[in-house]
Amino acid sequence: MSSNGFATTPEPPYYAVIFTSKRTEGDTGYDAMMDVMAKLSTEQPGYLGRESVRGADGLGISVIYYKDEASIAGWKAQAQHASAQRIGRERWYEHYEMRVAKVERAYSGPEGR
Amino acid sequence: MSSNGFATTPEPPYYAVIFTSKRTEGDTGYDAMMDVMAKLSTEQPGYLGRESVRGADGLGISVIYYKDEASIAGWKAQAQHASAQRIGRERWYEHYEMRVAKVERAYSGPEGR
Repeated sequence: MSSNGFATTPEPPYYAVIFTSKRTEGDTGYDAMMDVMAKLSTEQPGYLGRESVRGADGLGISVIYYKDEASIAGWKAQAQHASAQRIGRERWYEHYEMRVAKVERAYSGPEGR
Repeated sequence: MSSNGFATTPEPPYYAVIFTSKRTEGDTGYDAMMDVMAKLSTEQPGYLGRESVRGADGLGISVIYYKDEASIAGWKAQAQHASAQRIGRERWYEHYEMRVAKVERAYSGPEGR
């Protein structure tokens, strides 16, 4: 993530993993693991950037951008990340939705500011 | 948006508009307009649902799901929404990134909970 929270992505097409999640209550190691995973995820070939927000009610949306589908598959299978996914399913998330999408067009704004 | 914050979407393929934004400070009519737009947007043919989170630092991610690209174009051109977009560019957003993406695969979890 760049310092302002926006991902710097190339011209489309590229891929986005949209991860919407509701956290369980309590930390139980979540923040520490997220720090490790956020750092590790940037080393995945094809990783382009991420944008991530969590509200006070525990609902969060993270969008992670990748060059292509092979990069997404590589990150999913990465050993430490696979272990984190298991703990996430068991402990950290009440519910999540994950969508893999191909970005076709992109704009930024406001124009002229 | 369903009451738990997750959008109920059909089997892919469908479309996602990923809108990441940093708000300017102060309300200046933003919350009231968002209420109007959130209601109006559900009337757009092809609208499937939305997920939206804003953090305490003003960074927000909204993902709005549509049946197809024509539905997105229809909503972009809707008169009241076009007016809201203008005010947004002038007043409400320090910066935003909008990405239009085709959702190809989707999963939910945790399994078995």
